[in-house]
Amino acid sequence: MKTISAAKSHKGVQGVYAHPSIACACDMTFAVFVPPHEEGRKLPVLWYLSGLTCTHQNVMDKGEYRRLAAELGMIVVCPDTSPRGEGVPDEADNWQFGCGASFYLDATQAPFSANYRMYTYITDELPALIAREFPADMDRQGVFGHSMGGHGALTIALRNAERFRSCSAFAPIVHPSTAHWSTGAFTNYLGEDLSAWRAYDTVSLIEDGKRFPEFLVDQGRADTFLENGLQPWLLERACANAGIPLTLNMREGYDHSYFFISTFMDDHLRWHAERLNA
Amino acid sequence: MKTISAAKSHKGVQGVYAHPSIACACDMTFAVFVPPHEEGRKLPVLWYLSGLTCTHQNVMDKGEYRRLAAELGMIVVCPDTSPRGEGVPDEADNWQFGCGASFYLDATQAPFSANYRMYTYITDELPALIAREFPADMDRQGVFGHSMGGHGALTIALRNAERFRSCSAFAPIVHPSTAHWSTGAFTNYLGEDLSAWRAYDTVSLIEDGKRFPEFLVDQGRADTFLENGLQPWLLERACANAGIPLTLNMREGYDHSYFFISTFMDDHLRWHAERLNA
Repeated sequence: MKTISAAKSHKGVQGVYAHPSIACACDMTFAVFVPPHEEGRKLPVLWYLSGLTCTHQNVMDKGEYRRLAAELGMIVVCPDTSPRGEGVPDEADNWQFGCGASFYLDATQAPFSANYRMYTYITDELPALIAREFPADMDRQGVFGHSMGGHGALTIALRNAERFRSCSAFAPIVHPSTAHWSTGAFTNYLGEDLSAWRAYDTVSLIEDGKRFPEFLVDQGRADTFLENGLQPWLLERACANAGIPLTLNMREGYDHSYFFISTFMDDHLRWHAERLNA
Repeated sequence: MKTISAAKSHKGVQGVYAHPSIACACDMTFAVFVPPHEEGRKLPVLWYLSGLTCTHQNVMDKGEYRRLAAELGMIVVCPDTSPRGEGVPDEADNWQFGCGASFYLDATQAPFSANYRMYTYITDELPALIAREFPADMDRQGVFGHSMGGHGALTIALRNAERFRSCSAFAPIVHPSTAHWSTGAFTNYLGEDLSAWRAYDTVSLIEDGKRFPEFLVDQGRADTFLENGLQPWLLERACANAGIPLTLNMREGYDHSYFFISTFMDDHLRWHAERLNA
């Protein structure tokens, strides 16, 4: 692991790091905030997964998580949203597929299956690195994210319920198998057999019996992706049918941007801290 | 005035606006955050002046001022750092001069004097627009800024002490007439007669009798510009000689970036609110 940058912020350290990834067969970059802490102490870890077109940097710049994460004593890990670089298949003019648009799945279709293995990267390879290089208590992990990253957080929590104590999302994609903006990517990554898509779809995972103790979701009502893409009522129905407690806050006037995310960041950090510090 | 964008954030509105500037003879862009407020109520105005290479956007993205400005009920205005666009003289490869590097002065030397009139823009033209277009109480104004913008804040407050109730700065340039990174720009903008430079130099203004009730300055000790460029001890000495109370906080481990600024943003907002709401 190589340190790209490290700056003191809110008494902790905001770092950016890179490492050669086996899962993605390329160098991967990620950001980690380590709050101030006593030497030798292990801290809970909160994973933030970003949305389409983002890297680790968007939330690091605009998420406004450090002040309260420092106060609450949580490590915040912000991975990139896909493999990148020479040799990684991409369509430069398509923001819904390829670089910046992994949908946090393991692709099974060539040529994407060689690099687009973000599910394994986020659930296996990067956690091992975080456990090794940072003062992380891996028995206290939470996960949250935005949009495509909200989809990542929900699906990864449902499939790894034993590992995560808390999960929340900002404006998540809850049913990518049916949303127009994700079906193209799912076809490219996973092929045309829709049964293979269910392992990477929150609503389908819940229908298929996966469970998680509870979810927190915030969604702006002025989000232009609400009606056609995000449709949180699909998650609401799936959770109601499955008996999963869901706190769904519909926020009047808020859009899909980091102006929305940063507004409710404190609420989400406190939600996770209550569960990770319990 | 044209609205470029407007997004709800922390119950207020973060907008970006553009207008044709007479002072700068070009279109100018600026950001304004208006906190939630009762209809018809006038709010105090806090001006944030940005540093070299920045636009209105850096602090809007990374400054983390909205949460507390919303709570304290203050409008925050973030202007651009220079004139820009076709016909505005610039040296593209020089970040210490031209676009992004106005030093908030009125240039007297051709060809720069046609556009580089940021002192007039910030103290005259833009305030008139803000007063007209926003629910601003122009009897309650404060000013702060970072680096070159800290220089702007200090010099503008000293020259307009009757207008501003409060002034603070993050890592300000306090004596640009002698710092290696500003003397080139001052020569281009103001000519070689050093007496003309004193009106745009904090230490010189204080030496020449300008006064302000008190200043707050935060400065990172790990700031790579500290020893050769910023030298806050020059401000400390000038204030001590002039009897101006200065709170100078030297911050161990912090650099020159927005990781530093955002850490101490709350302290500065509270400093201004105490004086603007008094």
